[in-house]
Amino acid sequence: MIEEVWYMQKFLLLNGPNLNFLGKREPEIYGTTTLSELEESIIKVGQQLGVEVECFQSNVEGEIINRIYKAYEDGVEGIIINPGGYTHTSIAIHDCVSSVLIPVIEVHISNIHAREEFRHKSIISSATAGQIIGFGIYGYELALQALINILKGE
Amino acid sequence: MIEEVWYMQKFLLLNGPNLNFLGKREPEIYGTTTLSELEESIIKVGQQLGVEVECFQSNVEGEIINRIYKAYEDGVEGIIINPGGYTHTSIAIHDCVSSVLIPVIEVHISNIHAREEFRHKSIISSATAGQIIGFGIYGYELALQALINILKGE
Amino acid sequence: MIEEVWYMQKFLLLNGPNLNFLGKREPEIYGTTTLSELEESIIKVGQQLGVEVECFQSNVEGEIINRIYKAYEDGVEGIIINPGGYTHTSIAIHDCVSSVLIPVIEVHISNIHAREEFRHKSIISSATAGQIIGFGIYGYELALQALINILKGE
Amino acid sequence: MIEEVWYMQKFLLLNGPNLNFLGKREPEIYGTTTLSELEESIIKVGQQLGVEVECFQSNVEGEIINRIYKAYEDGVEGIIINPGGYTHTSIAIHDCVSSVLIPVIEVHISNIHAREEFRHKSIISSATAGQIIGFGIYGYELALQALINILKGE
Amino acid sequence: MIEEVWYMQKFLLLNGPNLNFLGKREPEIYGTTTLSELEESIIKVGQQLGVEVECFQSNVEGEIINRIYKAYEDGVEGIIINPGGYTHTSIAIHDCVSSVLIPVIEVHISNIHAREEFRHKSIISSATAGQIIGFGIYGYELALQALINILKGE
Amino acid sequence: MIEEVWYMQKFLLLNGPNLNFLGKREPEIYGTTTLSELEESIIKVGQQLGVEVECFQSNVEGEIINRIYKAYEDGVEGIIINPGGYTHTSIAIHDCVSSVLIPVIEVHISNIHAREEFRHKSIISSATAGQIIGFGIYGYELALQALINILKGE
Amino acid sequence: MIEEVWYMQKFLLLNGPNLNFLGKREPEIYGTTTLSELEESIIKVGQQLGVEVECFQSNVEGEIINRIYKAYEDGVEGIIINPGGYTHTSIAIHDCVSSVLIPVIEVHISNIHAREEFRHKSIISSATAGQIIGFGIYGYELALQALINILKGE
Amino acid sequence: MIEEVWYMQKFLLLNGPNLNFLGKREPEIYGTTTLSELEESIIKVGQQLGVEVECFQSNVEGEIINRIYKAYEDGVEGIIINPGGYTHTSIAIHDCVSSVLIPVIEVHISNIHAREEFRHKSIISSATAGQIIGFGIYGYELALQALINILKGE
Amino acid sequence: MIEEVWYMQKFLLLNGPNLNFLGKREPEIYGTTTLSELEESIIKVGQQLGVEVECFQSNVEGEIINRIYKAYEDGVEGIIINPGGYTHTSIAIHDCVSSVLIPVIEVHISNIHAREEFRHKSIISSATAGQIIGFGIYGYELALQALINILKGE
Amino acid sequence: MIEEVWYMQKFLLLNGPNLNFLGKREPEIYGTTTLSELEESIIKVGQQLGVEVECFQSNVEGEIINRIYKAYEDGVEGIIINPGGYTHTSIAIHDCVSSVLIPVIEVHISNIHAREEFRHKSIISSATAGQIIGFGIYGYELALQALINILKGE
Amino acid sequence: MIEEVWYMQKFLLLNGPNLNFLGKREPEIYGTTTLSELEESIIKVGQQLGVEVECFQSNVEGEIINRIYKAYEDGVEGIIINPGGYTHTSIAIHDCVSSVLIPVIEVHISNIHAREEFRHKSIISSATAGQIIGFGIYGYELALQALINILKGE
Amino acid sequence: MIEEVWYMQKFLLLNGPNLNFLGKREPEIYGTTTLSELEESIIKVGQQLGVEVECFQSNVEGEIINRIYKAYEDGVEGIIINPGGYTHTSIAIHDCVSSVLIPVIEVHISNIHAREEFRHKSIISSATAGQIIGFGIYGYELALQALINILKGE
Repeated sequence: MIEEVWYMQKFLLLNGPNLNFLGKREPEIYGTTTLSELEESIIKVGQQLGVEVECFQSNVEGEIINRIYKAYEDGVEGIIINPGGYTHTSIAIHDCVSSVLIPVIEVHISNIHAREEFRHKSIISSATAGQIIGFGIYGYELALQALINILKGE
Repeated sequence: MIEEVWYMQKFLLLNGPNLNFLGKREPEIYGTTTLSELEESIIKVGQQLGVEVECFQSNVEGEIINRIYKAYEDGVEGIIINPGGYTHTSIAIHDCVSSVLIPVIEVHISNIHAREEFRHKSIISSATAGQIIGFGIYGYELALQALINILKGE
Repeated sequence: MIEEVWYMQKFLLLNGPNLNFLGKREPEIYGTTTLSELEESIIKVGQQLGVEVECFQSNVEGEIINRIYKAYEDGVEGIIINPGGYTHTSIAIHDCVSSVLIPVIEVHISNIHAREEFRHKSIISSATAGQIIGFGIYGYELALQALINILKGE
Repeated sequence: MIEEVWYMQKFLLLNGPNLNFLGKREPEIYGTTTLSELEESIIKVGQQLGVEVECFQSNVEGEIINRIYKAYEDGVEGIIINPGGYTHTSIAIHDCVSSVLIPVIEVHISNIHAREEFRHKSIISSATAGQIIGFGIYGYELALQALINILKGE
Repeated sequence: MIEEVWYMQKFLLLNGPNLNFLGKREPEIYGTTTLSELEESIIKVGQQLGVEVECFQSNVEGEIINRIYKAYEDGVEGIIINPGGYTHTSIAIHDCVSSVLIPVIEVHISNIHAREEFRHKSIISSATAGQIIGFGIYGYELALQALINILKGE
Repeated sequence: MIEEVWYMQKFLLLNGPNLNFLGKREPEIYGTTTLSELEESIIKVGQQLGVEVECFQSNVEGEIINRIYKAYEDGVEGIIINPGGYTHTSIAIHDCVSSVLIPVIEVHISNIHAREEFRHKSIISSATAGQIIGFGIYGYELALQALINILKGE
Repeated sequence: MIEEVWYMQKFLLLNGPNLNFLGKREPEIYGTTTLSELEESIIKVGQQLGVEVECFQSNVEGEIINRIYKAYEDGVEGIIINPGGYTHTSIAIHDCVSSVLIPVIEVHISNIHAREEFRHKSIISSATAGQIIGFGIYGYELALQALINILKGE
Repeated sequence: MIEEVWYMQKFLLLNGPNLNFLGKREPEIYGTTTLSELEESIIKVGQQLGVEVECFQSNVEGEIINRIYKAYEDGVEGIIINPGGYTHTSIAIHDCVSSVLIPVIEVHISNIHAREEFRHKSIISSATAGQIIGFGIYGYELALQALINILKGE
Repeated sequence: MIEEVWYMQKFLLLNGPNLNFLGKREPEIYGTTTLSELEESIIKVGQQLGVEVECFQSNVEGEIINRIYKAYEDGVEGIIINPGGYTHTSIAIHDCVSSVLIPVIEVHISNIHAREEFRHKSIISSATAGQIIGFGIYGYELALQALINILKGE
Repeated sequence: MIEEVWYMQKFLLLNGPNLNFLGKREPEIYGTTTLSELEESIIKVGQQLGVEVECFQSNVEGEIINRIYKAYEDGVEGIIINPGGYTHTSIAIHDCVSSVLIPVIEVHISNIHAREEFRHKSIISSATAGQIIGFGIYGYELALQALINILKGE
Repeated sequence: MIEEVWYMQKFLLLNGPNLNFLGKREPEIYGTTTLSELEESIIKVGQQLGVEVECFQSNVEGEIINRIYKAYEDGVEGIIINPGGYTHTSIAIHDCVSSVLIPVIEVHISNIHAREEFRHKSIISSATAGQIIGFGIYGYELALQALINILKGE
Repeated sequence: MIEEVWYMQKFLLLNGPNLNFLGKREPEIYGTTTLSELEESIIKVGQQLGVEVECFQSNVEGEIINRIYKAYEDGVEGIIINPGGYTHTSIAIHDCVSSVLIPVIEVHISNIHAREEFRHKSIISSATAGQIIGFGIYGYELALQALINILKGE
């Protein structure tokens, strides 16, 4: 749809702890797609929608924060984040998300509200633009569309 | 994309209490689109995606439940629900959603996690397929896509 | 046992939200008897025990309250109620039950204490005469006997 | 005091669940005045103060919401509400009250803070202009004066 | 109804702490029937229904557990238990009830939900088949019928 | 209305901590009327209604208690109290209010339920006759009427 | 003081779990007097005050209950109890104490409020006449006087 | 018993808020003895036991603290305190009691554990030597003996 | 390894409620070894390690306490305890364990942290030397080694 | 540094309950400096920094409030407060601090977060400019510097 | 015991934050053995038991997760983990442990249940095979045996 | 003031997550000074006070711990830490701070008690020497003085 080759919005796809293991175990919860397959697929969908998607995964809370500040420095305009287990504990990521001006969308592959009690509450949500939860890896694609929609609205 | 004119999936768009007032007050939270504009726009998007969307709004908890059972009787294959204030209190809607076999997607226009404490917890989420929160009325469109994606996967 | 044909006690059997769906889904929890089969069977047992049982089901909290006041107007002498999901949230039904003088018995088909945490506490119990929980639809029959026993004691 | 016959402010007196039973039971808590006597008396006091009072009672949460929106459409300028048992549970009524611009005054006949623990907290209060609690049905009359006073101040 | 004299189901009626004092004090809560009168009456009703009821009372938590295991060894097929004050504290009785395969029905003479807060929650309920609460000593008779009904269903 | 000059009911208007500063700061919460203006106005309204109003303000919890006992000694027949910050913490004032037989009405200028969480709960309310909350200083006038109404009813 | 040899009030001194070990360990908390020394000393003080004190210690919750009922049968007129660790958990002892008509005084040797959090709350206190806490074994002697004082007052 | 006329231990009897009203209201809770009668009686018992008892009552939290420091300056060797409503809220009195080296005994006339929930917990107890609760005004006499016993033991 | 026949350390293996049923039911949680097989096997391992192991099981909380004091009298030098359901409720056993000087090791056959919420917290752990949890009956053998290791270190 | 002799900022040093006892007891927590030594030292440091420091201590909550309002009347420009035990309970002081416009700094001598749980939370902090905690009486000197720094910044 | 030289099971010993400081401070809690001494000793015990133990310590939560995944890639068959301070907060480590199939044993050197409240609860335990707590560094050796026992059982 | 050039105390200034972004966003909360400006200014103030200040910032929890241990190895004598978002969650940093012997002062730029609820509680405070909160970046300078004062006192 968008053809302006000389300029492309940059997005960041950020996956948190244990998502490196995606598709390798517990397929009944997370499906069988691996992280690199997921990243490739989102990059491709991004290309179709006219945005460039960079991908990053880390198990280290502080590296996720570092990567968000790097994105800010690089002029990234939107972030999709699946904070994994840090969703429920990280005030530091919350503060980072709320201090950069970039819209951030929180994605969860599984329906966290149908799992253990300690997964129901997200510390990060209040700092994000919105959340997409429970749609498997398709949720990342929805997030991409949502980001584009938000940026159009600005 | 889908041309099978002789058969069309039916979806139900269900809005709960106070959504009749959409677009009339508190535009900083809910935007300026009215409920009927929203419903028309979702019906139109549905047509483009090859699904027929019926719309219903009620302020009465039990009528929402009645409508879901009617949808079940009518062969509706997917439901998008914004349960409004019942989100946080209705075990009855939760039980209804979990007893019909139809996939249900929960939508919230605003980011409920960035508002009052009592809006953070949804009683209904554990019975739904997934949630889309904070993207304004565009969230309903994302829900439509998510529903189609879920049904494709079955 | 009771032959006084010229006078019969009237009882009300009141089923709350989602019990219209009884026997249609989740048979491992609720069994396979449908609501109308249940109602017919309780009416018949009532006839054998010499009481006339009226039946009512609604998904609307306020209609349940309305029906209880109607029962009061009609001279109903005992009520069997399965408040469904309103069991855990409805102060309004609690107040209604405690304001009419009719003895009310609370029935739950499944053992609510062996299910999710949010089903363990009943708001309504403190206003009822007693509770019968976990015996499937046979619990309604026990409730009928209990009601007759209570009225005998007065 | 006010004689402008050609124009009269319209107020709505809204009573919630179980207030249809007012004066019929538990007189030690609620007194012996019936609902229709209360409504007539408030209408009459309203006439003396130069306002027209419409009255409505419902046991159905959603109908109370519907009635408030109808009042908004009808140009009602002030609302007196006794939300009964919904006081403590209804986020939906709270949202409705805070979305219409009309000043709303919450009345409780009995001193809810001297009764059961679950009656101490009102979900609705934060959206109302003020509360009058514990003065029997005379509280409605005070509310009427308070409404007039608020509207004078605007 | 059941005439197979050469074989009779054995049931156990188990009363917990302070039920030895039944009928001696606090008749407004527990009535005036003494424990031995209760036991005799349940034995007699059992005979009419074709089951043999053994009775046991103890104030000692561990003796109640011992008695349940003895019942298991003796081929007892159903247990009626009023765990008294241990209802609210005994994980040990809970574990015992859930480890023997015999269906167990929990009875409370008074409506525990209309009494002190600390009596509202039962630790044992989740391990029982069902509960009968608030019908005075008649509740034991209902429990007997419920047990027979459960065993018929197996 | 009341002209019996030879006898006049005495009321006490009691203001707690920080109300000495009324009208000097935070007018968006408390308005611009000062404490002495408020007291004068209530004295004047009292005269019109045929009661004599004494006024007292203190920042000291124990002096408020002392003043209530003095009122009791003096034959004061009704008390209007705004306990300020002691509303939420003072069991001692609660006990004092419940030990004298004089009807006490609690007034709050602002709607405490729309402010910080720690202002929502009043320790004192359960000992008062009723509460009037959120009507600015007009609430004191309503309280005066309510007191007279209560005393008429005795 | 009291010389009526032909009749003497009987009291029961009841010590709960671990008090058999009194004086053997942890003297900084419980002192160095052993249980039998304590019992002898209380019996002797009892004789001086004209009452006969029977003593009993058990580590078994149910035996404590049994002993209280035995005391009731024996015409014991007052009970001094140190429920040890059952203080904080035993609803069964609470119920027993509140069902016999005998005044019961609760004694704790150490100041339980200056120890671990879980020792601060007594389940039993609400059923006793009073508590004497923190005075070492001298507390038992105070309890004896208090019992006599209570019985004089009846 | 003690005759050393040339030296007498000084004790302080300290009564907190609302105890000035003792014997004037709520006799079912607090009895009919007035504060001055109580003080005189304790002074007299003190004389018999060879101690001089000073008495003080205040409704002001800080004056109670001031009085304790004055007692410390005056060489008072033991304090009996009934902190009234400050029992449950005053960290300041707690700190004062724990900072002077004088043994302090806490007395409550009624059994606070058989009253409202908010009276069950004492903030002050952990700083006192012990507590005597529920024995009416006789509890003060027991406290006097306990103080003498404590001082003997030092 | 240890041959000093003329002297052998004595240990006590103490099993609490429901462990008499070990190996008879719920093998997926507790395995198929019966209690007597377990006891024999631990006695044998004890012999190999040069310690004499006595075994005791009881369903009665107080008998477990009695047995610990008996062990103390008998010169037992180490205790292995599986307190069963009393793990989560028994302050009395906690106090007993902390009053005898013998090192006590707490064993749980299953991983209690992967089961119901109410099994996660042990009241007794703070008084024990250590805990071994989740290794089936092999955990008892580990406990035996741990005890020997602790005693070596003294 | 500041030489404008003809004008000097006035500060208030306010110490709450029990600080009159500073240096007299518990030196391991509060050190050995007495209150008057502290006040003199802060006055002297103030003179060096060019500000005049008035000092006040009271054990009475309301007198602290009175003193703050007096400071406001007197043109005091900064307040250093150690609210002692009122830190954790006084909404009244909180309200006072937030209603006067003067910057207030909260000082605690000891590290309240390393002491009892009930000292961890300050009710007053949210109304102050900042807090200095744990530095002994040197904290007051730091507070003086901080106040000057704040006033420079305005 | 095991001689199959051509194949050896690999285990991972994983120590979390602050365990690098082992033996350097707080010997009363953690003993005097340093981390490298501990690691060497466990490697040696491993060799005797026929397993190869790799060792790793990190203060970084995410590096611990990375190391577990590396172990999974390397075919490690058992993990011993002391998660240090992350025990009580890390959902990310919990998720990692539950996603790899390797049995994991949690070790704590000190008895965490006898220390501060915040150390009592482990987030990680529910995902581990078992826990060994309170036996000093000997606990690691027990864990080694437990791991071998678990693997034998598979 | 201090000229001993041949020896200088070393201090460490440690900033946690998101403080790299200081001065770049949210100036109303954190001011406009950047991190490197802050560090330079503290180094300079340190030089004036005769101490050498090293600076370090990291978003990674474990790197902060590593840096503290490095400081310990390097002979650093005092630490100033702003733990950012880890303040409220990091038991690991708490344990690290309490295990090194170096005095640590906690600084927060903003008044965390006037912000979101989740920022009110610090996990780390109980292990630090003291806290300085709410004075902007000037708080770091106060901390420097406090550190020097503490070290003087040793």
